[in-house]
Amino acid sequence: MNGNIILTPVGVLHCGLRNRSQVPRNYDISDVTGDIEIFPDYHEAMADIKPGQEIVVLYWFDRADRSALKVYPRGDRSRGLTGVFSTRSPMRPNPIAISEVEVLEVEPGRIKVKGVDALDGTPVLDIKKKV
Amino acid sequence: MNGNIILTPVGVLHCGLRNRSQVPRNYDISDVTGDIEIFPDYHEAMADIKPGQEIVVLYWFDRADRSALKVYPRGDRSRGLTGVFSTRSPMRPNPIAISEVEVLEVEPGRIKVKGVDALDGTPVLDIKKKV
Repeated sequence: MNGNIILTPVGVLHCGLRNRSQVPRNYDISDVTGDIEIFPDYHEAMADIKPGQEIVVLYWFDRADRSALKVYPRGDRSRGLTGVFSTRSPMRPNPIAISEVEVLEVEPGRIKVKGVDALDGTPVLDIKKKV
Repeated sequence: MNGNIILTPVGVLHCGLRNRSQVPRNYDISDVTGDIEIFPDYHEAMADIKPGQEIVVLYWFDRADRSALKVYPRGDRSRGLTGVFSTRSPMRPNPIAISEVEVLEVEPGRIKVKGVDALDGTPVLDIKKKV
């Protein structure tokens, strides 16, 4: 039960964000557009995604530091070090990010979205309906 | 970039839900309480979690079918098969569940919560602040 878990990305994000300073702090303040490429093995799973929907995307932040257990939230040192489980920092033992984006267009194997807050090339683990 | 990703659970859920028929369909309709045990390596990361907060929990649904790409949402066949990326079904290639729970009590290595919608023994991958 405490053993390792193996995930396989279902897709990858393509967008213009190439370095961290360009990435909006969160999806709710992002107007950045991008394309989510869904790998062929998973095309069937995207069958009912339609333009105009808001969808939840789980990214794997592959370039995040997984060793930090406390961070300065938003880089603000005035509030002191905070346990990562009380933050949305990308730094955490399993850097899975929850994002919400608007679907602009859907093509086979590709979902064009708005509200991107992740670097170009970020692996996509899952997509869900909003609650 | 398309290679496998290895996760290590940061904790495990303890609760009275032992079979699927007992599990509420979603956290927003659950009054079930449970204990999230955080493993010793990650205790420091839970430092600032306090009673009364709502927190986001990412579970690993270790007993979910990872092969299904289309499902009948909520078991309702009248709406037809739907791509899993348009649902909240536990069945999906990477069965990571997003849940929101209320913190009732905090002890070293243990968070007592309300709003549980997962089986006893479910691995916990991450905890985050709500947006």
